[in-house]
Amino acid sequence: VELLRVTYRFDVPAAEAEARAEAVAREQTVEVPRAVVDREPYLAEAIVGRVEAVAPGDDGAMRATIAYPAATTAHDPAQLLNVVFGMTSLQPDATCVELEVPAGIRSALGGPRFGLEGLRKATAVADRALTCTAVKPMGRSPEALAELMGCFARAGIDVVKDDQGLADHAFCPFEARVRACLRAVRRAAEETGRASVYAPNLIGAPSIVFEQLRVAEDLGAAAVMASPMLIGLPVFWELSRRSSVPVLAHPSFAGAQRFATDLLFGGILRLYGADAVIFVGTGGRYGTPRETCLALADRLRRPWGDLLPSLPVPGGGIQLEEVSGLVSLYGRDVMLLVGGSLQVEAGAVEARSRAFVAAVREASAG
Amino acid sequence: VELLRVTYRFDVPAAEAEARAEAVAREQTVEVPRAVVDREPYLAEAIVGRVEAVAPGDDGAMRATIAYPAATTAHDPAQLLNVVFGMTSLQPDATCVELEVPAGIRSALGGPRFGLEGLRKATAVADRALTCTAVKPMGRSPEALAELMGCFARAGIDVVKDDQGLADHAFCPFEARVRACLRAVRRAAEETGRASVYAPNLIGAPSIVFEQLRVAEDLGAAAVMASPMLIGLPVFWELSRRSSVPVLAHPSFAGAQRFATDLLFGGILRLYGADAVIFVGTGGRYGTPRETCLALADRLRRPWGDLLPSLPVPGGGIQLEEVSGLVSLYGRDVMLLVGGSLQVEAGAVEARSRAFVAAVREASAG
Repeated sequence: VELLRVTYRFDVPAAEAEARAEAVAREQTVEVPRAVVDREPYLAEAIVGRVEAVAPGDDGAMRATIAYPAATTAHDPAQLLNVVFGMTSLQPDATCVELEVPAGIRSALGGPRFGLEGLRKATAVADRALTCTAVKPMGRSPEALAELMGCFARAGIDVVKDDQGLADHAFCPFEARVRACLRAVRRAAEETGRASVYAPNLIGAPSIVFEQLRVAEDLGAAAVMASPMLIGLPVFWELSRRSSVPVLAHPSFAGAQRFATDLLFGGILRLYGADAVIFVGTGGRYGTPRETCLALADRLRRPWGDLLPSLPVPGGGIQLEEVSGLVSLYGRDVMLLVGGSLQVEAGAVEARSRAFVAAVREASAG
Repeated sequence: VELLRVTYRFDVPAAEAEARAEAVAREQTVEVPRAVVDREPYLAEAIVGRVEAVAPGDDGAMRATIAYPAATTAHDPAQLLNVVFGMTSLQPDATCVELEVPAGIRSALGGPRFGLEGLRKATAVADRALTCTAVKPMGRSPEALAELMGCFARAGIDVVKDDQGLADHAFCPFEARVRACLRAVRRAAEETGRASVYAPNLIGAPSIVFEQLRVAEDLGAAAVMASPMLIGLPVFWELSRRSSVPVLAHPSFAGAQRFATDLLFGGILRLYGADAVIFVGTGGRYGTPRETCLALADRLRRPWGDLLPSLPVPGGGIQLEEVSGLVSLYGRDVMLLVGGSLQVEAGAVEARSRAFVAAVREASAG
């Protein structure tokens, strides 16, 4: 069986690290109580991660390596992230520090299609370090940026990228900018005999990004750039597969975990169109503070201009006994998500589900 | 002028907060030295953020509210994130805690298309709290999950979503699963007279996600689910615009900032196809430790199965005087990104660019 090995750092006492690792090995795969896994041996064999090593790292914090069957990733770029760090990324004591990617997943994703040598070829620089700068700032016209591009190109800078803040602005539209900058590159090349590589910034929802790629290729751009953590890693991956020129990755938004919880789940997800927002609620395995949960639920439902309210969906380890208290806490405009706990007792899924339904009806009537 | 207000928490001494906020107001927009902004007054007027308030918050940490001209976001779902928290998310002392979104951006994004009331309508639940659970675990066949779906549906659970770990696995393909679960919903409804809403999990690169949406709609799913931080927030937004049924947001991968820096930039971005990876290097405005930078650059270039090497591109505030030292540090297989510092001196862009090019050539020859 092909294995994907992931190493996590757990900021927990050494004595708890083994149990923490076992919990993560289940959380990242089956996400059901251990009782369910124990009843179905093929889950333990073919799906659940296996804890291979637990030991302190150089910094004294505990490290655990978990081997997941590669098949759990479906060899898909999004599901891979899900298995590696999906739910565990929400637990504040865990950091993902290392990956050992088996050959099957490496070849399914494929990595760089041009890579280091592709950029050397595009820039015609055989063996020295390369130079790069950016046309900027946001706010200048395509003509002003093209003038800057001309300076850089005549000076012989190898790669000139757009600033990551250049989008399809009314004051500097994407196509006009790319056209003007490429014209400046060609003019400079007529003078110097050597062409800089200009890499336009692709940014937007995926249909926009792929359309911008087509425009950039048609106009003759020799490279493109995008911010993977901003447009989405799986989008970046698809972009790298579609592009006929090298793709530069920009770090923008890579630290996005540092949004306040209520802003991300209560504000941003509503703005981005979520009709219902699942979050890891108070209690359970994630320990989101009660006030944060209430603030988040309130933001999803309260008036916000013309935006429709969204339905808050607390989850993340709710037990049947907690249902009534949670309806009191959130009120009626809520959907309670109870997962693995409905399956904990063999042969009793339907009965436990009925108890869940009855508890919510009763609490809502009260 | 329409304004987008963003509030950040800065974990800095009170006396430094004002300067920190001023720096962020530039960083998130023009990202050039103040001298450039001072020479071009329209930048300060129409593009750069304005610091409106700096004061300690309830927790004692400093808060600053910055008003950005809405036009900087291009009213685009990806560029909005870029302006709100793109580069600043990479600075460990900053957290984005609040947003005040003007009407123009709200209506450009649009928010939920069905929302809370749409889910009440889909489930035919007028005024009580709703119930939700998940078909799981990963590893079961479509038939086994459909049997579980039948239990939940007969018990009267309102919404049954896929576990977020259910992808298009060989052992449980997407279409077969959705078909089997919807059949179970219909059978239960014949018994009980009331249909549960089943929400399949959409996951993959964008072309896969949109194809899965089409399949789910064609088969008659009354809702769908996706993980916005995993597939990308702009992808989620486009999904919410395309979907004819309510869209549930799942929190998976929302804490992804807690990847080790060298793993994310050195390993994951290479695996996902980046030909060159821009990162915020040692020195400059981000303070990435030197060893992290070297580890990252090494990972991008060293042998890794059949994957091509990627080109490391350190940036984030490199000064001309530092160029030679950085080439010594990283070696020749590197591209140095020098941005705003080429524009700091009026009328000297081409001369400073030539100095940059010469410094890299000289250091590479040494």
